[in-house]
Amino acid sequence: MSEDIPRGSRFLHSDDPFDFHLGGTLARISLAYETWGELNSARDNGVMILTGLSPSAHAARHPENNEDGWWEPMVGPGKPIDTNRFFVICINSLGSCKGSTGPASINPESGKPWRLEFPQVTVQDIASSATRVIDHLGIDQLLAVVGPSLGGMSGLAWLQQNPGRARHFLSISTAAAAEPFAIAIRSLQRECIVSDRLWLDGKYSDDERPATGMRLARKLGMLSYRSPQEMTQRFGRREEVMFEHYRFGMDFAIESYLERAAVKFVGGFDPCCYLYLSYALDLFDASEGYDSLEEAVAPIVLDSKMVIGVKTDILWPLHQQSQLANAFKANGVKTEFLTLDSIQGHDSFLVDYDRFLPAVDAYLKTIK
Amino acid sequence: MSEDIPRGSRFLHSDDPFDFHLGGTLARISLAYETWGELNSARDNGVMILTGLSPSAHAARHPENNEDGWWEPMVGPGKPIDTNRFFVICINSLGSCKGSTGPASINPESGKPWRLEFPQVTVQDIASSATRVIDHLGIDQLLAVVGPSLGGMSGLAWLQQNPGRARHFLSISTAAAAEPFAIAIRSLQRECIVSDRLWLDGKYSDDERPATGMRLARKLGMLSYRSPQEMTQRFGRREEVMFEHYRFGMDFAIESYLERAAVKFVGGFDPCCYLYLSYALDLFDASEGYDSLEEAVAPIVLDSKMVIGVKTDILWPLHQQSQLANAFKANGVKTEFLTLDSIQGHDSFLVDYDRFLPAVDAYLKTIK
Repeated sequence: MSEDIPRGSRFLHSDDPFDFHLGGTLARISLAYETWGELNSARDNGVMILTGLSPSAHAARHPENNEDGWWEPMVGPGKPIDTNRFFVICINSLGSCKGSTGPASINPESGKPWRLEFPQVTVQDIASSATRVIDHLGIDQLLAVVGPSLGGMSGLAWLQQNPGRARHFLSISTAAAAEPFAIAIRSLQRECIVSDRLWLDGKYSDDERPATGMRLARKLGMLSYRSPQEMTQRFGRREEVMFEHYRFGMDFAIESYLERAAVKFVGGFDPCCYLYLSYALDLFDASEGYDSLEEAVAPIVLDSKMVIGVKTDILWPLHQQSQLANAFKANGVKTEFLTLDSIQGHDSFLVDYDRFLPAVDAYLKTIK
Repeated sequence: MSEDIPRGSRFLHSDDPFDFHLGGTLARISLAYETWGELNSARDNGVMILTGLSPSAHAARHPENNEDGWWEPMVGPGKPIDTNRFFVICINSLGSCKGSTGPASINPESGKPWRLEFPQVTVQDIASSATRVIDHLGIDQLLAVVGPSLGGMSGLAWLQQNPGRARHFLSISTAAAAEPFAIAIRSLQRECIVSDRLWLDGKYSDDERPATGMRLARKLGMLSYRSPQEMTQRFGRREEVMFEHYRFGMDFAIESYLERAAVKFVGGFDPCCYLYLSYALDLFDASEGYDSLEEAVAPIVLDSKMVIGVKTDILWPLHQQSQLANAFKANGVKTEFLTLDSIQGHDSFLVDYDRFLPAVDAYLKTIK
């Protein structure tokens, strides 16, 4: 699966056996990451970005890759995540297909992709594998962890594993555990994929992937990532036949929009990796083993915590952002909870830069 | 398709050719309907119920069928739709598979089900076919039209076609036209069905239907019919393995809930009829051919109009209920708009009887 590993990625090939949270061990793992800016002499200006489900480590341009990254307006010199100030590290999640080891990687024993032989990946594994990159870079303490969506969960798990190893934590549109509506959507997305006759219990051919299931899953994803308000504003009931009309659809602009998103996604993400990471999102519960979220985050020492949420996010609703903020507050962490009026739903952090750039900028200007 | 035609249905077999709104003519159509109570001597106590997408005409028990109907607590002697006062008629929509003519009916020319040879059904066709039942019953003017969900659209279309032929109109959780989020959900449901390898361009065998596609479609339906709030309250993150667990799911109670709903639905509704009616919902726009909804409903003469909507309905959101109410108000119709706090989303009218029974009762007590 080399289709989508960004040019200029750096790789940590780690030969320490990696024990997965739910069982299973790999003799070695690789992690793709990218960095921007310079680590200062005190080695205390590191900012780690953990990502949502599908992005690679290529958050922004750098000399080895001048293609736009997935968070281009956010990361760079003079931008909110200011690479003149910070040494920024973005890590591709373990289990992904964008350079880090995952179900699409080659199992050295068999010479074939791991697929379902790969141990189940959890958010805890994404976090603990990220630690290897931070260790490798010789950073004892990060200035900040930044995590949107799944990255916010991974960041939270990372801080639970490394309670004093970052001074600030910015989480965006995330939660400490998924609620049933979000679980239901993702469960149905996964069912779309495994129901595809080309899924073949994970033994699909790379030339003939379960594209129909992936397309359905992506469309359902888009319905949960954006918002009804945005769709009404952008598309209304406007008719637009961009793709082949069939007996029961493809009349409306909203349908073309979803089809475009689906077509783009199908070629760009390995179905098995998608299933693993989607499932990891549902399994994670930061409170597991504790009586409450307050108790679960109590060991985390931070100088400040910022929670940003969006009113129209139906996947990670505002009350979950509030729970997260309250849990840190209850432990005496200086916490701010910011609610943005973006209409683009969960994806707002990737598109509503008018609101997100100043919000992130203002917060990061307060940390040092 | 006799699987689900309720016992004791009455049928109007009409030999007048039926011209479909979007083209096509049938030499004859049949309509399944049920009635409760007695038509008074003035023939002015008729209340017509038009239904949502999937229900039959069996809204409640009657001497020929003592099984609970789909709106059992609502319809009967002394109940809100009081059959001691009203002569209640519920009509199975044209295009359904519950007794009225539809794509699952036998095409007399071929001796096989119509399937895709059936003309596209629109909300306007559901309405104009219902008129035949009202004519047949010898009712010049209905006391009221009651329509939840699709039934509210059909009721609105019926009043547009028959502007002075009902004195009161109660619409519940409906709209004058679907918004793009609702269209997107239904379009994706339809795509799930036609993507099933057993769909076979509508030539599926009744022994081997596109059950996978129907199951996915039903689950997606449930996500839009209920609400995140209800799911959080009922299921939370509770684990429950009622169905076979597989590698990526069926751990959580919410997943079992959806699976139960899906299994029940797959055997009970013809895929082709589902596609026709789902598509009809998206195509309908009461304002089509007018400059505004106000103008579109201007010819409708009513003594009163009641609009009931639910705060957690994501499929037919509250602002659409408000639009509907305002359009009638703008035309001088005595209009009330009632917002209910039900947490069960769009389906609340079928389950939150604590709120819906008194609301409907209070309104219908004001009409005479």
